[in-house]
Amino acid sequence: MIRVAINGYGTIGKRVADAVTCQPDMTIVGVSKTKPSAEAYIAKARNFPLYIADLSKKEEFDKAGIPVAGSVGDMLAACDIVVDATPGGIGAKNRALYEKAGVKAIWQGGEDHDVAGFSFSSSCNYSDAIGRDYARVVSCNTTGLCRIIKLVDSEYGVRKVRATMIRRGGDPGDIKRGPIDAIVLNPVTIPSHHGPDVQSVLPEIKITTTALIVPTTMMHMHVVQMDLKQPGTRERIIELISKNPRIGLVRKATGITSTAELKEYVMDLGRPRSDLWENGVFEGSISVDEDDLCLFQAIHQEADVVVETIDCIRAMMGTITIPEESIALTNHSLGFSPIR
Amino acid sequence: MIRVAINGYGTIGKRVADAVTCQPDMTIVGVSKTKPSAEAYIAKARNFPLYIADLSKKEEFDKAGIPVAGSVGDMLAACDIVVDATPGGIGAKNRALYEKAGVKAIWQGGEDHDVAGFSFSSSCNYSDAIGRDYARVVSCNTTGLCRIIKLVDSEYGVRKVRATMIRRGGDPGDIKRGPIDAIVLNPVTIPSHHGPDVQSVLPEIKITTTALIVPTTMMHMHVVQMDLKQPGTRERIIELISKNPRIGLVRKATGITSTAELKEYVMDLGRPRSDLWENGVFEGSISVDEDDLCLFQAIHQEADVVVETIDCIRAMMGTITIPEESIALTNHSLGFSPIR
Amino acid sequence: MIRVAINGYGTIGKRVADAVTCQPDMTIVGVSKTKPSAEAYIAKARNFPLYIADLSKKEEFDKAGIPVAGSVGDMLAACDIVVDATPGGIGAKNRALYEKAGVKAIWQGGEDHDVAGFSFSSSCNYSDAIGRDYARVVSCNTTGLCRIIKLVDSEYGVRKVRATMIRRGGDPGDIKRGPIDAIVLNPVTIPSHHGPDVQSVLPEIKITTTALIVPTTMMHMHVVQMDLKQPGTRERIIELISKNPRIGLVRKATGITSTAELKEYVMDLGRPRSDLWENGVFEGSISVDEDDLCLFQAIHQEADVVVETIDCIRAMMGTITIPEESIALTNHSLGFSPIR
Amino acid sequence: MIRVAINGYGTIGKRVADAVTCQPDMTIVGVSKTKPSAEAYIAKARNFPLYIADLSKKEEFDKAGIPVAGSVGDMLAACDIVVDATPGGIGAKNRALYEKAGVKAIWQGGEDHDVAGFSFSSSCNYSDAIGRDYARVVSCNTTGLCRIIKLVDSEYGVRKVRATMIRRGGDPGDIKRGPIDAIVLNPVTIPSHHGPDVQSVLPEIKITTTALIVPTTMMHMHVVQMDLKQPGTRERIIELISKNPRIGLVRKATGITSTAELKEYVMDLGRPRSDLWENGVFEGSISVDEDDLCLFQAIHQEADVVVETIDCIRAMMGTITIPEESIALTNHSLGFSPIR
Repeated sequence: MIRVAINGYGTIGKRVADAVTCQPDMTIVGVSKTKPSAEAYIAKARNFPLYIADLSKKEEFDKAGIPVAGSVGDMLAACDIVVDATPGGIGAKNRALYEKAGVKAIWQGGEDHDVAGFSFSSSCNYSDAIGRDYARVVSCNTTGLCRIIKLVDSEYGVRKVRATMIRRGGDPGDIKRGPIDAIVLNPVTIPSHHGPDVQSVLPEIKITTTALIVPTTMMHMHVVQMDLKQPGTRERIIELISKNPRIGLVRKATGITSTAELKEYVMDLGRPRSDLWENGVFEGSISVDEDDLCLFQAIHQEADVVVETIDCIRAMMGTITIPEESIALTNHSLGFSPIR
Repeated sequence: MIRVAINGYGTIGKRVADAVTCQPDMTIVGVSKTKPSAEAYIAKARNFPLYIADLSKKEEFDKAGIPVAGSVGDMLAACDIVVDATPGGIGAKNRALYEKAGVKAIWQGGEDHDVAGFSFSSSCNYSDAIGRDYARVVSCNTTGLCRIIKLVDSEYGVRKVRATMIRRGGDPGDIKRGPIDAIVLNPVTIPSHHGPDVQSVLPEIKITTTALIVPTTMMHMHVVQMDLKQPGTRERIIELISKNPRIGLVRKATGITSTAELKEYVMDLGRPRSDLWENGVFEGSISVDEDDLCLFQAIHQEADVVVETIDCIRAMMGTITIPEESIALTNHSLGFSPIR
Repeated sequence: MIRVAINGYGTIGKRVADAVTCQPDMTIVGVSKTKPSAEAYIAKARNFPLYIADLSKKEEFDKAGIPVAGSVGDMLAACDIVVDATPGGIGAKNRALYEKAGVKAIWQGGEDHDVAGFSFSSSCNYSDAIGRDYARVVSCNTTGLCRIIKLVDSEYGVRKVRATMIRRGGDPGDIKRGPIDAIVLNPVTIPSHHGPDVQSVLPEIKITTTALIVPTTMMHMHVVQMDLKQPGTRERIIELISKNPRIGLVRKATGITSTAELKEYVMDLGRPRSDLWENGVFEGSISVDEDDLCLFQAIHQEADVVVETIDCIRAMMGTITIPEESIALTNHSLGFSPIR
Repeated sequence: MIRVAINGYGTIGKRVADAVTCQPDMTIVGVSKTKPSAEAYIAKARNFPLYIADLSKKEEFDKAGIPVAGSVGDMLAACDIVVDATPGGIGAKNRALYEKAGVKAIWQGGEDHDVAGFSFSSSCNYSDAIGRDYARVVSCNTTGLCRIIKLVDSEYGVRKVRATMIRRGGDPGDIKRGPIDAIVLNPVTIPSHHGPDVQSVLPEIKITTTALIVPTTMMHMHVVQMDLKQPGTRERIIELISKNPRIGLVRKATGITSTAELKEYVMDLGRPRSDLWENGVFEGSISVDEDDLCLFQAIHQEADVVVETIDCIRAMMGTITIPEESIALTNHSLGFSPIR
């Protein structure tokens, strides 16, 4: 049983905690929170031992009726591996803590590659993660790009990728962030940093990316164009996607043409938190003109890295060494098979 | 076993279908859809027999891989009671169909009171529905108002109600409706029609309402002010809410101050489709100044009528005659207790 | 010629600067900015001398091609009165600066009453401002409330006011602030602070307010209910509004039912920056039931305090002592008469 | 004096009417409206004779206090040329009317190329329009693409264009259209129709486009990538834009990174209706990697075709035969020079 701690029980952390709970070979030893809040109540409702960074705040939690199990240090002492899901930039500061506690650690894509010296994507470099002490699961956008690029590259070879990411402004529960009525260039410079981030996983791929932010709350949308090394066909791409355990196909017959309808669909399917763990490639968009491939894919910013994190835990612990085996186990334990 | 048909498997219909399935004394005999769509695929995934109004469209469904069980007429022949969840205004045209089939029928609040001659709210007039052939479950907004007014009226007596409804622009999956960046007076005239609609259930209550539409997708927000017949206290109101099976209390300690955070909270609680079946009264807002009560409550437009519809089925079939019993059974079967 | 300085050339400051420029008895001696930005370019295009708080940043402005006229201290030395339009909370810190420079100062509603010890509204207490050294022009929402309450109170007497403010999330050019898809209780407690703020101008009025924030960028919407001291009529209210120099009537015949359509209308009328300087009372909403008055009014958060600030300058300088005269001069100089 | 009629006094029509009024060689003989509305009041305020399609509705206008000058047929009889700015799809039905009246006609981009058999863009094919009876000014998106492609093609030659259009959901005053919280693929298929539409003006250009809709109201954003026939430089592109009369440069030093800030900027510049008649190319985004050019440009959907329509009128009337002359006259008469 791999003992997992979640440092930062927020948007990603709470999802990883639930996913860990579903796995037969892992268990949650604790989650952390800095102040009593709606999510602290959820941790309590889920019976996750709750640890806090600053024990002087224990009284605040007591007053809110939320039991505190101890300090984050206590939590680290009880685990084999910690998933750092603290807000972007905080994670790097935690590295010393993890080193001192002698535990393996996984960071999320809000941190730089250097925090761990290794960037992870289940479909691309699972084997390279085996036995490692530190790894960074790349961001939701990078994960989504890596999955589809890897799939196409394995079949046809990819000469060049151009991708535009239309990003959601804030998460559904985030009431502070905008914009309200604007399309924001983020960054205004071209290319964006997402290309180099993909290269932290797939160093051979030539890729240029642009990114914008729009006033929506769920799922980024990618416009992905690839120059193939040899002519391809639409049918073969669809066939490959249909067999991929982390890429879903939004069938044309469903009439789904947007992030909102896709979210409604996965909600209706009964997915926990309406999560889209897979890439949502729109069947109707897949276009192949000889060596020129183009498609739209939806990427759920809160969810796609969750399943990757589970795989990363196994790779680092070395308990499963064949990537496909871990991916299949993660998916099966969640009752997850990609939409087709 | 009460045999229930759902005419119109959309936003409300699909939720009622799932809620019926959870009840020990009811079963779904079929659901209807006019064209193949994402929701038709969901009906198939849920193993609900799918009926269609126009059999000439069967081929379209066949092509999409969605089996058709027969016509809506066939569906009606197999049921004891039909829940009409067709788009507003269509339901009235279906009455002749239901009469001809000799089945009991429930309409939703998008239809006028006259469609059934009786308007239903579990907490207010369950007993009056017993044995009826036709009933209308009042709209989400009216249901939310009736619940809280009834609660307060039973304790203190209510002299007058003033309510402002800040309504969501469209449902989460609806990509056509706006507004995008506007506050819309709907209607521009004062009062709005919601007051009279409340009176279709609670004829004695004096109430004036105003309504606006804003660019959000989940939950209406009500500002409710009541003149009480005798002085009240905040504590007593909180106590009453805490015991009510259809009104939840959004505790101040959770830090929740918005529809979005409340939705995240019920999502995290694991509610199917993140549904808020209860009124979400904000504890921090409850203000009682002698005989003047004021509060905010969130009303989930897709969900609060679902549990009422289940109760209405039982009342009309006459299988349970005590309101509290049906309400308790509905809640228990859904694993639902209001947030506290 | 009254020499006016604008400390903070942003949303409000730039509008006040333009309005001052239109007045026959005032002139702009300078405006201030903390860093080169789009608005600094506008100041340059308008030929307003630009002063900066921190002269060490002069090089940054030079590099951007924006000439710097001197420090904020220099600007204060050249003016009779300064309009502080810095972000909320900063203004209070500037008071010492203004005292030292020996200039009169006007703050905006983002500051507390105490910053000046006097809160101003043209229609309510112009005369009390005559000769004062310091004044605060109340916020856009408070200004809008004061105007309509004063109008009704003068005619019928007002026993009690209840108002709900549905507020825009951020200004049109603000891309950071949300919410994107939420109705936010701000504050979650009832009543909100707006009632006491109205009382800083109209101390005799009994008023309770509630406030929410929604994802829109232009204009707040008020639901205003008043208990009158004697029965009134809708016709008389319309007549009074039609004669008021700071309250507009959104005629039913225009078909306008929203903030967005109202903005389009004032834009089409050629108003600078599409500004609605007046309250926008919706004719169709005005409802009088004996001593119970209810109406909707739109309040443009960027604009309604601009004309008040102009009047406040005159009152404090003592150059015009009759309120109606200043109001008329301000309006006429802007080519402004309220929509009818 | 060219006598111009505007059939359809809405978003585009009212802007063209104002632009015509500013020109020294044109005059408005009338505008049309189908029902009394806010815009009908504006026509009255502007002293434009108002004609209506259906004279039986005259009474409605009378009641609203809006004088009717006659029927659309009367208006056509009084003009040399009509600008059809009716809603998309209606325009084609009007062709017979214009033929019968023997007047020249210009349609907007909501109509197909076939409605006129000729598609117009000032910078691309002014000369081909000289003396024509019918022309279609291409849509805002196509106009924006044609301008930038023509500029680059003239200098370097363009081998291939790839463009993604992130489109606004509805116009600012449109309260019906969504989406509220969704990114919509429109169309879901790749490529979109915009490429062929560009080719209706620039038949030699190889272009592939994709298009999405987001919940914003002002300006589309284009991601434009071009393969050049020879290596280029960023500096030269900036230089070319700086000299182009219909392409603006959003300087990096302004700090503007979004549609909303750009709109605020042109509003502050005093542009009527805050209109951006030019392409808004973001200086910071212009990236040239040998023969690979990439940039972001903002396109104001309500405005960029207005100046083109003015030029088109002159070309068709044959009064000015040199494109640069008409473009310069149009710009000068509006007091318009592109942002730099």
